[in-house]
Amino acid sequence: MVLSLIGLSIVLLSKEEEILFRSWDGDVIKVNTNSNTTEILLKNTTFATFKASKFAVSPDLNFVLLGYDVKQVYHYSFLASYLIYNLYTREVRELNPPEVSDSVLQFASWGVQGQQLMYIFENNIYYQADVKSSSWRLTSSGQEGVIFNGIADWLYEEEVLHSQAAHWWSPDGSRLAYLTINNSLVPTMLLPSFTGSLYPRGREYPYPKMGQINPTVRLYVVTLDGSSLTTELRPPDSFEKNEFYITMVKWVTQHRLSVRWVNRAQNMSILTLCEATTGDCMKKHVMTSDKWLDRQNEEPVFSKDCTTFFINMPLKHGGHGTFNHITMISNQSDGPEVNIRHLTSGSWEVSKILANDENKHSVYFLSTEEGVTQRHLYRVSTVEPFQKECLTCSLFKSKCTYNNAVLSPSYQHVLLNCRGPGIPQTTLHKLTDMNKYKTLEENQELRDALINRIMPKWERRTVQINNFALRLELIVPINLDEAMEHPLLLVLDSAPGGQAVSDRFSLGWESVLASSDRVIVARLDGRGSGFQGQRILHEVHQRLGTVDVQDQIAAVEHLVKLPYIDGKRVGVYGKAYGGFLSSLLLLSHSSLFKCGIAVAPITSWKLYGSAFTEKYFGFQAGEHHKYQVQLNVNILGSLEKDISSLLSNITAPSAMNFLIIHSTADATVHFQHSAELVKLLSASNVNYTLQIFPDEGHNIVSVKSQHYMLNSVLTFFKLCFEEPPTDEPQKTKEED
Amino acid sequence: MVLSLIGLSIVLLSKEEEILFRSWDGDVIKVNTNSNTTEILLKNTTFATFKASKFAVSPDLNFVLLGYDVKQVYHYSFLASYLIYNLYTREVRELNPPEVSDSVLQFASWGVQGQQLMYIFENNIYYQADVKSSSWRLTSSGQEGVIFNGIADWLYEEEVLHSQAAHWWSPDGSRLAYLTINNSLVPTMLLPSFTGSLYPRGREYPYPKMGQINPTVRLYVVTLDGSSLTTELRPPDSFEKNEFYITMVKWVTQHRLSVRWVNRAQNMSILTLCEATTGDCMKKHVMTSDKWLDRQNEEPVFSKDCTTFFINMPLKHGGHGTFNHITMISNQSDGPEVNIRHLTSGSWEVSKILANDENKHSVYFLSTEEGVTQRHLYRVSTVEPFQKECLTCSLFKSKCTYNNAVLSPSYQHVLLNCRGPGIPQTTLHKLTDMNKYKTLEENQELRDALINRIMPKWERRTVQINNFALRLELIVPINLDEAMEHPLLLVLDSAPGGQAVSDRFSLGWESVLASSDRVIVARLDGRGSGFQGQRILHEVHQRLGTVDVQDQIAAVEHLVKLPYIDGKRVGVYGKAYGGFLSSLLLLSHSSLFKCGIAVAPITSWKLYGSAFTEKYFGFQAGEHHKYQVQLNVNILGSLEKDISSLLSNITAPSAMNFLIIHSTADATVHFQHSAELVKLLSASNVNYTLQIFPDEGHNIVSVKSQHYMLNSVLTFFKLCFEEPPTDEPQKTKEED
Repeated sequence: MVLSLIGLSIVLLSKEEEILFRSWDGDVIKVNTNSNTTEILLKNTTFATFKASKFAVSPDLNFVLLGYDVKQVYHYSFLASYLIYNLYTREVRELNPPEVSDSVLQFASWGVQGQQLMYIFENNIYYQADVKSSSWRLTSSGQEGVIFNGIADWLYEEEVLHSQAAHWWSPDGSRLAYLTINNSLVPTMLLPSFTGSLYPRGREYPYPKMGQINPTVRLYVVTLDGSSLTTELRPPDSFEKNEFYITMVKWVTQHRLSVRWVNRAQNMSILTLCEATTGDCMKKHVMTSDKWLDRQNEEPVFSKDCTTFFINMPLKHGGHGTFNHITMISNQSDGPEVNIRHLTSGSWEVSKILANDENKHSVYFLSTEEGVTQRHLYRVSTVEPFQKECLTCSLFKSKCTYNNAVLSPSYQHVLLNCRGPGIPQTTLHKLTDMNKYKTLEENQELRDALINRIMPKWERRTVQINNFALRLELIVPINLDEAMEHPLLLVLDSAPGGQAVSDRFSLGWESVLASSDRVIVARLDGRGSGFQGQRILHEVHQRLGTVDVQDQIAAVEHLVKLPYIDGKRVGVYGKAYGGFLSSLLLLSHSSLFKCGIAVAPITSWKLYGSAFTEKYFGFQAGEHHKYQVQLNVNILGSLEKDISSLLSNITAPSAMNFLIIHSTADATVHFQHSAELVKLLSASNVNYTLQIFPDEGHNIVSVKSQHYMLNSVLTFFKLCFEEPPTDEPQKTKEED
Repeated sequence: MVLSLIGLSIVLLSKEEEILFRSWDGDVIKVNTNSNTTEILLKNTTFATFKASKFAVSPDLNFVLLGYDVKQVYHYSFLASYLIYNLYTREVRELNPPEVSDSVLQFASWGVQGQQLMYIFENNIYYQADVKSSSWRLTSSGQEGVIFNGIADWLYEEEVLHSQAAHWWSPDGSRLAYLTINNSLVPTMLLPSFTGSLYPRGREYPYPKMGQINPTVRLYVVTLDGSSLTTELRPPDSFEKNEFYITMVKWVTQHRLSVRWVNRAQNMSILTLCEATTGDCMKKHVMTSDKWLDRQNEEPVFSKDCTTFFINMPLKHGGHGTFNHITMISNQSDGPEVNIRHLTSGSWEVSKILANDENKHSVYFLSTEEGVTQRHLYRVSTVEPFQKECLTCSLFKSKCTYNNAVLSPSYQHVLLNCRGPGIPQTTLHKLTDMNKYKTLEENQELRDALINRIMPKWERRTVQINNFALRLELIVPINLDEAMEHPLLLVLDSAPGGQAVSDRFSLGWESVLASSDRVIVARLDGRGSGFQGQRILHEVHQRLGTVDVQDQIAAVEHLVKLPYIDGKRVGVYGKAYGGFLSSLLLLSHSSLFKCGIAVAPITSWKLYGSAFTEKYFGFQAGEHHKYQVQLNVNILGSLEKDISSLLSNITAPSAMNFLIIHSTADATVHFQHSAELVKLLSASNVNYTLQIFPDEGHNIVSVKSQHYMLNSVLTFFKLCFEEPPTDEPQKTKEED
């Protein structure tokens, strides 16, 4: 169980009383919570010695796997070389496939027992029973850039699993489930390269755009007893001849797995329970939607005997549409009789089901019941009347209203990761008495750094926009002078289904603008945003770029009516989907905005990845290549359609203050998007400013480039928001 | 003989009295100068009917070759499909290789007799004896992107021949000489593509960068009598084992060719006279230089018996270095005795030797004798005392001081192309009495368009800079108010060896800035510029980016002392090599410049083409890949070395006003150059603005993009040169 936190990664070990984490100063520390003893397992200097930036401690706590020469690939994935470091003898050995030296691996990690090791090289999975034994290859079909075993391709990493790993250890480490993702028919995209050599080559990789051929996926379980016996877990009959995704795999016992299969259109999902030994999968639950199914990665929680399981399911709440709630589904003795009970209900959502303590008939979960911007830990009884209790609502006062939690295996402790609105902290609580806790990390450095800082204020309001009650957040300079007019910056979310307004702590560049330049920063969770029920979310179905744009406009129109906001100095910022929206807003509603930035904007949905786009625009089986996109799905389209009317709103070329920022090796939103936009803007004689980051990806890795980008964004808005001198500048004598 | 002129191409036919040209309204017209009759050969509507944009009339005047679907490749080359149009029957047939339909050809043209046709398809040469006969393939070694027959690869087109064609007809059309350029060992560059498809692919082509493997070249002559007998013309012995270029091929009789071979380092050149029948080449003249040899494309003029020939050769003039002058070299009866006579001399240069009228013992040439910015037509006697006469000096008063000329085959007429300083015109003169002429084109439309325009003034001055007397040109707004301070724009030339200051008519965007925005535009022919003797030219040897930069700085320092120039508003503009200079000037002398533009800047010479770069930086045989470049050869190098000192001059990020413009598919200066620069600027936190033209080349083809670029450049300088309001803008109340 790994939990990530600002600057920390904490491992809660199976031995109830032990916690492992890397402290701010870089040491890896083991804490025994019972004896309250602390042990440094690995000094920070060891990382420096081996230039390592990734680490993992073996289950038996004797070894550390150190990753060095780390090169980011996509969002989560990276290439690295690995060393195995003996914590006691300080011996070091390289981790290499047989007969390969100085290897660069796509993945490496410990298993779940002793010194089990697995790694992925050239898209094949390798296994070692322990540090000293030789490794054997579990798969042979791997083909670089084509067939991926145990590791995600771009699509699965970015849009399906949201993880680099596509393999799952059985609880006792005797088996490994893994995906084989076959891209042989998927069109490849060329990522060009521009720097660092005389003849930069670029790189091709499979990337299915909307309506194009998707990779096929198969799920296998391999036995690690030396036999390498491999069993395929077969998809449900109704999917066999159609395209599908595998969105979730979870071992529920030593030989059973729950697997979720979703059709390509993402409006039908089948949860199965599979036998690892036979490969047979039994349908446990089917969900359909007339729009799309969201949160298909969420793991169900099964009872030990597998007769009962808990999942999140949309539940209607009066006239307010449906909300995700815990549903308990049980069938006795594998018979056809199914018993469905809703453990929670209301106009709020369960955001995560954590665990089921069968002894205490309790299910633990996180929800927004206290407020849509909050996440609290709850326990609900699985026995009627399903009594529910909030475990964190009265903790830490109002400093911790947005939490994540990891329960210890025997449900004695919970590792509580408070993410806001105060400075994030990590605490370990006894579940029997939440007030008994030990602070593992309180982010003292950040706390100290902020002590003498004048911080802006975060304000929330609910606004009635286009018949929806939508959340609006304002970052307001401290000591706001309401008699003065302030510039307004609208910040857009980077994908639908997210939440821009929440109690999560964040201190980004927007806060700097608010505190240093007295800019009011606004965020709206409009139609298409998540965790407020499916009605708001599903409003964008086949309407990306329309209703979402309308809501943002309405929010701006609402805000500029405030006496302390200057309607002549409104800016907008967005990345990816947010860049799509900011481009649309700037080009089609240029009278509202003085300036704006689009980072890696999606300018045509036809050019974006299948799994994401087809959620919103649908997919008709057998319609590869002929796929027709709806009106308004892309900026280019709407611009081409309306270019003259758009341009008539732009009074002077220099009045358009539009900065496009894009990395040339962006593997998620290809530079193509900005190139098409720039081409169109040039042809339409619309001014823009471009900033490129050569050979950087969707998320900029180089610290210097990050710094430069931040600086550019701040300077851009600073200049845009500068008030013109109150006296008209004296015109210089000029002849035309 | 084809002469290009603004909007016109004029063909002077062998039949003395006939002239063929396409008029402004698009008709192809034949003029008989004796009878003064005019005949429309081809109506402009025919071009529209076939969407044709290229045309050529057959030697027998019965057919027109029409090129359509023209797609620019590099500077001169283009792909097109072709039709053959019968001027009398109006029949049309496609021009296709045998068994190919709808072909796209790399080249197509008439031969020199009747209806001879040749074209190039898939890098092989095809020949047709007439319009109706079937075509046969003359070469078979052609391989797309690798082995080029009769057509130039990128290097030969851009840097060696300055033409797409690499083949030459013998005077009677019975033989064809052609180059075979083999790129099999040359590294290829990838030109990425970004727009127009879901998965843009990019394109690879051979491009030898400095010090990298060059293509090999061979010269063949093929007989067109049906035998396809092919003879190789062998390089001089001393070149056989070394790398060399063939820079010039010219038929001098029906079976003899003069060929110039230049070693890769370009400091040794051998002029040979070759027998087409045997392939034997005899050395006629060897030139060497301790710097580099320039103008190696120039054709020698041979006497009919080949015993005498005229070439341009550097000739020492007192203490002023050497200047190119006509040298007559003769050896009687092919013996070893060689007689060398200089027909001209002085501190001026012969720019072109045109023809030798043996009957009249006269050589015609163009020179700068009247002034370095001028080109006049002269006739010099080949008999002592080599009496010389200017034929154009007293024509058209001062309106035509920059001329080009084409002599008719029997030296009765000369087609005079006056290129400035007045509005260009084309006239046909009797050589016996230059005052008897007929005007073929007087650019009436341009003349009309300029009638009511307020035009700026062109002013020249010679300035003593760094011990050289250098030419400086100013474009000055009309009615200059010397009591006012004007902004200054320094415009840089795009390659060394050129001439920025000349009497050539030009009416570019700079003139717009001068007339509309009252900007003073300056151009300097500093060290490295051409046509002023070799001393000034060779000053940049191994010093590109140093002495040339110093001269431009000195010019600016000189100019800002003028009372009517505002030293606080100085801008700079340059493309390619000029972009290299403008970047250097802006980054290393930022205190002098308020703003500047670099278009397609060369930022590292290591990344630029071999033939160009090695002229200036040298080439050591056998030093491929290990090549060491001198200090200061690239911006990146000098920036990396001096970045802190450079940056200390830049007072504020926004003070740097640096626009980089680059097309992403630039095949000459790769986008790589700007990418490396942008990366460095980002890392050094230096502000810049970037404009890209996706998928455009070194010269922008799309009219909309051209327009956008022009607009951007004008707007950029307009904004940069705007005077700040004389009153300090009232600071808005702000807290930091």
